[in-house]
Amino acid sequence: MIVVMKSNVSREKQEGLIDWLKSMGLGIHVSNGEYQTVLGLIGDTSKVDMELIESLDIVDSVKRVSETFKCCNRKFHPDDTVVQVGSVKIGGGNFCMIAGPCSVESEEQIVEVAKAVKAAGAHMLRGGAFKPRTSPYDFQGLKDRGIELLKLARAETGLPIVTEIMAASDLPLFEDVDVLQVGARNMQNFDLLKELGRTNKPVLLKRGLANTLKELLMSAEYIMASGNENVILCERGIRTFSDYMRNTLDLSAVPMLHELSHLPVIVDPSHATGISRMVPPMALAGAACGADGLIIEVHNDPLHALCDGAQSLRPEEYAALSKKISAVRAAVLEG
Amino acid sequence: MIVVMKSNVSREKQEGLIDWLKSMGLGIHVSNGEYQTVLGLIGDTSKVDMELIESLDIVDSVKRVSETFKCCNRKFHPDDTVVQVGSVKIGGGNFCMIAGPCSVESEEQIVEVAKAVKAAGAHMLRGGAFKPRTSPYDFQGLKDRGIELLKLARAETGLPIVTEIMAASDLPLFEDVDVLQVGARNMQNFDLLKELGRTNKPVLLKRGLANTLKELLMSAEYIMASGNENVILCERGIRTFSDYMRNTLDLSAVPMLHELSHLPVIVDPSHATGISRMVPPMALAGAACGADGLIIEVHNDPLHALCDGAQSLRPEEYAALSKKISAVRAAVLEG
Amino acid sequence: MIVVMKSNVSREKQEGLIDWLKSMGLGIHVSNGEYQTVLGLIGDTSKVDMELIESLDIVDSVKRVSETFKCCNRKFHPDDTVVQVGSVKIGGGNFCMIAGPCSVESEEQIVEVAKAVKAAGAHMLRGGAFKPRTSPYDFQGLKDRGIELLKLARAETGLPIVTEIMAASDLPLFEDVDVLQVGARNMQNFDLLKELGRTNKPVLLKRGLANTLKELLMSAEYIMASGNENVILCERGIRTFSDYMRNTLDLSAVPMLHELSHLPVIVDPSHATGISRMVPPMALAGAACGADGLIIEVHNDPLHALCDGAQSLRPEEYAALSKKISAVRAAVLEG
Amino acid sequence: MIVVMKSNVSREKQEGLIDWLKSMGLGIHVSNGEYQTVLGLIGDTSKVDMELIESLDIVDSVKRVSETFKCCNRKFHPDDTVVQVGSVKIGGGNFCMIAGPCSVESEEQIVEVAKAVKAAGAHMLRGGAFKPRTSPYDFQGLKDRGIELLKLARAETGLPIVTEIMAASDLPLFEDVDVLQVGARNMQNFDLLKELGRTNKPVLLKRGLANTLKELLMSAEYIMASGNENVILCERGIRTFSDYMRNTLDLSAVPMLHELSHLPVIVDPSHATGISRMVPPMALAGAACGADGLIIEVHNDPLHALCDGAQSLRPEEYAALSKKISAVRAAVLEG
Repeated sequence: MIVVMKSNVSREKQEGLIDWLKSMGLGIHVSNGEYQTVLGLIGDTSKVDMELIESLDIVDSVKRVSETFKCCNRKFHPDDTVVQVGSVKIGGGNFCMIAGPCSVESEEQIVEVAKAVKAAGAHMLRGGAFKPRTSPYDFQGLKDRGIELLKLARAETGLPIVTEIMAASDLPLFEDVDVLQVGARNMQNFDLLKELGRTNKPVLLKRGLANTLKELLMSAEYIMASGNENVILCERGIRTFSDYMRNTLDLSAVPMLHELSHLPVIVDPSHATGISRMVPPMALAGAACGADGLIIEVHNDPLHALCDGAQSLRPEEYAALSKKISAVRAAVLEG
Repeated sequence: MIVVMKSNVSREKQEGLIDWLKSMGLGIHVSNGEYQTVLGLIGDTSKVDMELIESLDIVDSVKRVSETFKCCNRKFHPDDTVVQVGSVKIGGGNFCMIAGPCSVESEEQIVEVAKAVKAAGAHMLRGGAFKPRTSPYDFQGLKDRGIELLKLARAETGLPIVTEIMAASDLPLFEDVDVLQVGARNMQNFDLLKELGRTNKPVLLKRGLANTLKELLMSAEYIMASGNENVILCERGIRTFSDYMRNTLDLSAVPMLHELSHLPVIVDPSHATGISRMVPPMALAGAACGADGLIIEVHNDPLHALCDGAQSLRPEEYAALSKKISAVRAAVLEG
Repeated sequence: MIVVMKSNVSREKQEGLIDWLKSMGLGIHVSNGEYQTVLGLIGDTSKVDMELIESLDIVDSVKRVSETFKCCNRKFHPDDTVVQVGSVKIGGGNFCMIAGPCSVESEEQIVEVAKAVKAAGAHMLRGGAFKPRTSPYDFQGLKDRGIELLKLARAETGLPIVTEIMAASDLPLFEDVDVLQVGARNMQNFDLLKELGRTNKPVLLKRGLANTLKELLMSAEYIMASGNENVILCERGIRTFSDYMRNTLDLSAVPMLHELSHLPVIVDPSHATGISRMVPPMALAGAACGADGLIIEVHNDPLHALCDGAQSLRPEEYAALSKKISAVRAAVLEG
Repeated sequence: MIVVMKSNVSREKQEGLIDWLKSMGLGIHVSNGEYQTVLGLIGDTSKVDMELIESLDIVDSVKRVSETFKCCNRKFHPDDTVVQVGSVKIGGGNFCMIAGPCSVESEEQIVEVAKAVKAAGAHMLRGGAFKPRTSPYDFQGLKDRGIELLKLARAETGLPIVTEIMAASDLPLFEDVDVLQVGARNMQNFDLLKELGRTNKPVLLKRGLANTLKELLMSAEYIMASGNENVILCERGIRTFSDYMRNTLDLSAVPMLHELSHLPVIVDPSHATGISRMVPPMALAGAACGADGLIIEVHNDPLHALCDGAQSLRPEEYAALSKKISAVRAAVLEG
């Protein structure tokens, strides 16, 4: 950690700070520049409160030299992590297609969609049973009944199931679920993350709407530091001033997360754009920039079929997209 | 709800949509404009999925005419809500000063700060026992021991206590706490909000870093719809591209929330700016634009005293600010 | 245009507004809903000040039904515009690779880079002569001398040249330039846009750091309304709270701009990311989501060669990327 | 300037960088930390391209220790600048109220408003003659005729006049204008800034919608480095995800700009909020946090009188606000 002092700080105040830092067991390397003094802190700085020091009126700024994330850091773990879900693999060159409806609505619906996405090349089935909704008056999901229907769909197709968990107290209901999804709004629900860290189930961790990459990695760290290394990161759009799109899909997060971490990174173009017509181009872009998978909404609802719209793709659209995705991946790898 | 159709939509597709809307029990008023057709939906539209309709390719846009928030809406409750905490009142002309350290550290610290802020005019004591931290390696708070120390400080000073709850499962530990705080990261932890709605304790609900005012009000609605009407809203800064400040304090939220809702609105200038020198001007600005209270960090730590810095104010700075705040409020009311 | 009135507006005030609107030559269609009244404005609403009406205290909100952009609107011009620059075409299926150094530095440099990018498949040469810099103390470009050097490079290679213009008064210097670039900071320099509209030269218009797609299209409209229809739109990253990346490349702008407008859309991954390692994945993603071209920084500087870094690609990196881009485009089109 | 090297950089590459830096006339102080090496650059680093160095793959990050802004920096000019406009002063304890209509519309309008705001305590008159509009089809202002009308209003009232300039080529028309305003969209129109720096007229420089405080100060630096020290900074709201407000007024910019710079800082609550009801609370907040003045829209239009709305205040509202502002300022100074 580097502490840049303000110019014209009294020797007495500077010594006060240095003594205080030394009292925390740190070595201090003082470098007197032409205009300003810089302190280099040597030793275990992980417990040093960077913001506290930065707020001191004798300090200009503070810079961490070593990262605060360890478990998910590629520096300490150069090889890609491969998360295994049954026979399905994600990461390290294994590309995973996850598809299914936004919400589980009925046995007929989920089984039919599961069969359709399997036929179109999907490796896992998604479907919401517990739904986080901005309004308390909106549909909150079928809950435990929804999980049972997902299991039926799995039994019919063999596809592992991915579904969102919103509260640690619901964990018993998810015992037989294959991948636990943490939604964007819960990315910093630290109590939930710690509990998921105590399971051995793969966790699909979505980036929050206004969270930085560092914060996403620190949330992965909460899970991993509690013992569970099976974390899949997911970029699903951030909140900006965007006018025509629900959120702004930040695809540059994909190569940057790959540089910073060894964890697999997937992309959710459906929630990012909120418009089905925008899903194929953004899914192809996600594949082109190196994502390890895509999670895409697919449904078979007649209203949507009637109107050719909605956030979800119809199964035949998904099948066509699926073929293009394979072609793009091949072009990037062999191109 | 108003649905603006795209131009050149076939009669057949438009009729399909109208029939589907009617099947949900709605009346439809069709208005054919020069270029486009507009459908007015009459009846209970609260269950209509606005985003689904907006995503249809025959629809240009959708606009809700009636608000989706009810309990906290000033339209249906014109008078200011006054939240009562023991003998302390917030809202409806009652201004409330909440002060205390970021974290409870020891009995000596919290009792000393409590006495100091009481002497300086504070009406309630704040202090973190459960601390949400971005990193799992950072100090997570004294937890239940911290709550016990807050109670000791309350016993010494008579000040009601405000402290953050991070998980519904911790509720039993908060039985004797006066005001439950929901932090910015948990603003959309809907399971927690619902549980707090089932208590009768006042809830201080902080706006999330990237949440709109509507989302803040919908989160208040989760608490109120579950039966608890004692909600205090808190503006604490939003995430922007700001370079010199941790967050951007959005003070225009204060008069706008007062227009939209009858709930009291307080301001937290300490977390928004992260710099103690910026706390007094922003606290005064908050009072000037009509906030119903201020929650400010105060500590008595010698390091800070030495260096004149940090996010927290020293007790004597808080006392001086407190006097100015009273003067500004008087100027605004009588000016 | 639709005006949604607040509930409980007095008949007298509502009639006042209607009379005022009628005085502007508009027809008014009044639709009384269950809770609120909606006015439909019929006729030429392009001169109606939407924000003024929205700010009236009897009005809840205002919605434009017809777009305010005309010349660049796909609704009125369904076919893709193809911009022609000498023998090079952009748009309508014609993909254009533009490459070159950030700044023109010397004859040797620009000629050498021009030859290298031509060999690697580029169709046009870029290079800054007038440089917009945040600081007045930074290098401001070689100016007219830089333009002369670009022409030399064009003479050597046959590549048309693209360079930024910052002030209308410099136009005479650009008489022999092929494509005039408007930088992000000048996207709403309306006087400059109008002047460029009076030329017949192709204009490469970059999206401003915090501008919406509608604002970008309105700026294109300034150029086109003045008579010049040769506009190329360019997405180059927007300003967000991003931590590891200079800006956030908003690739979803590409398919959305294609839906809204008939103009060609290209992507600049170099300025968006500011990191050469991130340029290839984001360039491939841009090609995958349908961009009509890519503008990429390439240089031949030994420092960069030594250190394998910087925002710019080396010629051999660009050549390798160029091949992958062709493969990805083929995969998307034929996949 | 401090350069933090990545860990595990080869000695050869590190020496290459050091040699290159030395070749630019800098002294280099190498500090080998436990994990990483830090280079301290000594000498004139103002010409060093920080982003270039940061982009090298052997470099972790770069930090400027000395600020790049000089003329406007409080470090080198501790006393407040007082800008003088005729007998009116701004800054250094002199509070300035600027008021008037958004656009100059007619002689009758501007003279009547000028008299009204003078009676209500305003010190200067504002009014737009050249109007930057997002759409080329919107009213672009009365231009030179508008400036003539402003002069008439000045002759009638003695109030100095403030009006926006959009292009350097219009400067001759502004010869007799008292304060030249640079709008938010032109904050980084560097050619315009340089030209204004060559005049000796006070410049009111508005912060751009998505510009940082550092960028605002660098734009002031463009004017000052060209010789004109009469710069007034203006906060007028930034672009965020805000739902109910046009922009987000960033009032914390006021105390922070005062800390960084000696220039006066004023606030524009009218453009920031876009809603007249929100102007008084935000104006009071601006005064409370230490602004040196307020620029507020006032008009006398009967439509607004009828409807009690719009962005502009009516003269009697402005007069009432004016008294409260004085009271708030007194409370802050004496409180």
